[in-house]
Amino acid sequence: MVGGERAVARCDALGVAPYSDMAGGLYRGYLTPAYGAAQSALGEWMAEAGMAVRLDPAANLIGRYEGDDPASPALLIGSHLDSVRDGGRYDGPLGIMLGVEAVAALSDAGRRMPFPIEVIAFGDEEGSRFPAAMLTSRAVAGTLDAVPFEMADREGVTLEAALSAHPPFVLSEVEGRAANAASGIRASTALSTNGYLGAARAPGTTLAYLEAHIEQGPVLEAEGLAIGTVTGIAAQLRYQVVVKGVAGHAGTATMTLRRDALAGAAEMMLAIEAVAREDLSDLVATVGRIEALPGAPNVIPGEVRFTIDVRSGDAARRDRAAGIIQQKIAAIAETRGLDIAIERIHDLPASPCDPALMDLMDEAVAATGWKPRRLVSGAGHDAMVMAALCPTAMLFVRCRGGISHNPAEHVEPADAEIALQVMLGFIERLGARFGNA
Amino acid sequence: MVGGERAVARCDALGVAPYSDMAGGLYRGYLTPAYGAAQSALGEWMAEAGMAVRLDPAANLIGRYEGDDPASPALLIGSHLDSVRDGGRYDGPLGIMLGVEAVAALSDAGRRMPFPIEVIAFGDEEGSRFPAAMLTSRAVAGTLDAVPFEMADREGVTLEAALSAHPPFVLSEVEGRAANAASGIRASTALSTNGYLGAARAPGTTLAYLEAHIEQGPVLEAEGLAIGTVTGIAAQLRYQVVVKGVAGHAGTATMTLRRDALAGAAEMMLAIEAVAREDLSDLVATVGRIEALPGAPNVIPGEVRFTIDVRSGDAARRDRAAGIIQQKIAAIAETRGLDIAIERIHDLPASPCDPALMDLMDEAVAATGWKPRRLVSGAGHDAMVMAALCPTAMLFVRCRGGISHNPAEHVEPADAEIALQVMLGFIERLGARFGNA
Repeated sequence: MVGGERAVARCDALGVAPYSDMAGGLYRGYLTPAYGAAQSALGEWMAEAGMAVRLDPAANLIGRYEGDDPASPALLIGSHLDSVRDGGRYDGPLGIMLGVEAVAALSDAGRRMPFPIEVIAFGDEEGSRFPAAMLTSRAVAGTLDAVPFEMADREGVTLEAALSAHPPFVLSEVEGRAANAASGIRASTALSTNGYLGAARAPGTTLAYLEAHIEQGPVLEAEGLAIGTVTGIAAQLRYQVVVKGVAGHAGTATMTLRRDALAGAAEMMLAIEAVAREDLSDLVATVGRIEALPGAPNVIPGEVRFTIDVRSGDAARRDRAAGIIQQKIAAIAETRGLDIAIERIHDLPASPCDPALMDLMDEAVAATGWKPRRLVSGAGHDAMVMAALCPTAMLFVRCRGGISHNPAEHVEPADAEIALQVMLGFIERLGARFGNA
Repeated sequence: MVGGERAVARCDALGVAPYSDMAGGLYRGYLTPAYGAAQSALGEWMAEAGMAVRLDPAANLIGRYEGDDPASPALLIGSHLDSVRDGGRYDGPLGIMLGVEAVAALSDAGRRMPFPIEVIAFGDEEGSRFPAAMLTSRAVAGTLDAVPFEMADREGVTLEAALSAHPPFVLSEVEGRAANAASGIRASTALSTNGYLGAARAPGTTLAYLEAHIEQGPVLEAEGLAIGTVTGIAAQLRYQVVVKGVAGHAGTATMTLRRDALAGAAEMMLAIEAVAREDLSDLVATVGRIEALPGAPNVIPGEVRFTIDVRSGDAARRDRAAGIIQQKIAAIAETRGLDIAIERIHDLPASPCDPALMDLMDEAVAATGWKPRRLVSGAGHDAMVMAALCPTAMLFVRCRGGISHNPAEHVEPADAEIALQVMLGFIERLGARFGNA
């Protein structure tokens, strides 16, 4: 079994109990029993690949493969171990498993890079258990000022309680791992709120952060490409729109006298779609949630609420589009005699990947015989958080139908193998550049 | 206080406890304590107006004012005493109160018509307590084969239990009502499931059914008219549409590759509106309920469900429009690569009012100095059920903003007085025609 294939198989192995907290599907929330079980399995795989394994104070699992110079800043390779509820098996874990495979390949070849490599499995990228996301990468990046330990999950368990209950990490006794054990494998001590922010890495100790992730979109598949170089995380704006008309009886209000909030919202939704389509760029605009009140088949809706999500790799383009969308909504409301309120509920800046690292990635892609393709990530990733700490690079892997956050999420093992070869090529090139620096 | 004013005041009086089962608003379900209390008040008003009062086996309250010939078929004047939850005060009760006022005017003048007049307060036109509507008018019209006594309200109380618990009707002892009491006022016996279908009237014993009702639409108000002659109840079609596309991440799926079920539904909703608008007739089409799944701001909807309600006084026009709507929906789905399923969930035929009675009504309208205006009822009424028993006539009364099923429902007392004068003119003309028959 080649490394990419094994990476996918390991993601699959983590898709069921005890690595899932949900019967008949996958849910692995931060600090749940499934999370602990998945860390145990991952720790064994890391150790097998020649890494020293530890749990950091934010309950991220980290495997370290020493470099020629142990004092050199480390290359971090990572992604997240948690999943959404009833999610897919690859969103997150694939990037971790490919990191493990990259180290395994070096280790098997008896090679060391000039710098140490650490594979990191973040805990809560999805934010599917507690009402916050990417706390653990923010802890590592040092951008977290305080931790909301009092926040609770659906069952009322606080982050503080979940953290205290999280089992210390212990590797099994395996004959062949004596050398590794000596170089740092240890049982972790119990986690506590006091230590959490100690997960932060000192500035200058991290060379770069590399994350491979499924695309979660259909672009690579549509173009027949297995992998793509990510240019950055898109800037994102989110609005809540409230349209108010006049509710009325569906049988008695003539068409000309209606002020139908839903018909108005329909016209607005088409305008939003048209603005994004006509931009012919990476700009996307989505109405994902809609509610019409009172919501009876025989009542003309008097009020409609919907969300708008606008993203682009280029913040100026995104803001220009959002402005046009708001103008069009206002004009439609005016014509139809509807009242509107538009509230901005979210504004995330773009997080560009490092240009020099993108070049290295493109070279590594080309070296595998594939056409370099750059694309923006519409979704957020731990990489956007890590960008505060060090230069970042991301590699997207084709996923079937662009589907994610769904049990139907699928990655071809052959594509994972291509991604692994690109990552190894990237690491080689980074090593060469490091040597030249 | 003139009769119309008093009719409105009595509706208002019934808008609060004990005539409402809801704090801070009006809800009067069939056979609730509020329903019983409202029957007690109404019974007193009927008796005061010179009527003999009784409860029929379906728990409809009926007041009878004898005519010259007690054996003659009776003119029924009625509407319903129940309301929707948090509803208005006039939808239903106004027609009953105007019936009482019409009899009071005749009684005060010492006049009798050739035929008896019975004012009937139906029980469950709205169907807001049990999952069925117009059972009590169907019982009277004799169109009910079986009664679903086992059906239950939200609290699990069955119709059978509610019927058995409904208090017998007892009039208070009032000096001046001796004559009436002698002519038929009585305490009713307890109701039971056995007797329910006995509410049916024998064919030929009912001359006609007259119902005054608020328009529940904006037409009369827009044209500056207080009243209008109803031509019939519109034919009604209802569909459930399911649109299936592909759910996807709002950030990662490019616009050109999307199969967004909600954007498709938006285009369909605009097409539905356009079909109805362009018909330039009484045709109305409404999307009142919509649901987009999964319904997260950052997920492209993969499935949308919505309802379509299409009505016209002309069934052929309605069916033609429904056909065009279905074609347009199919074409939009085809273009966008969406799957659709359209299910017809409701098909009510039109229920025309009696043409000769419409003429009488127009004459009565003209006699009050108002311009006769005919309009279709988009909403269903007990009259559509009663049409199976006898010729029907309906008079619409202007209501503010066309608003109904809402606490903001409002009728001007002056308009109610105009309606009362029209009803009296209608009764006079019916009497004259009856004499000539």
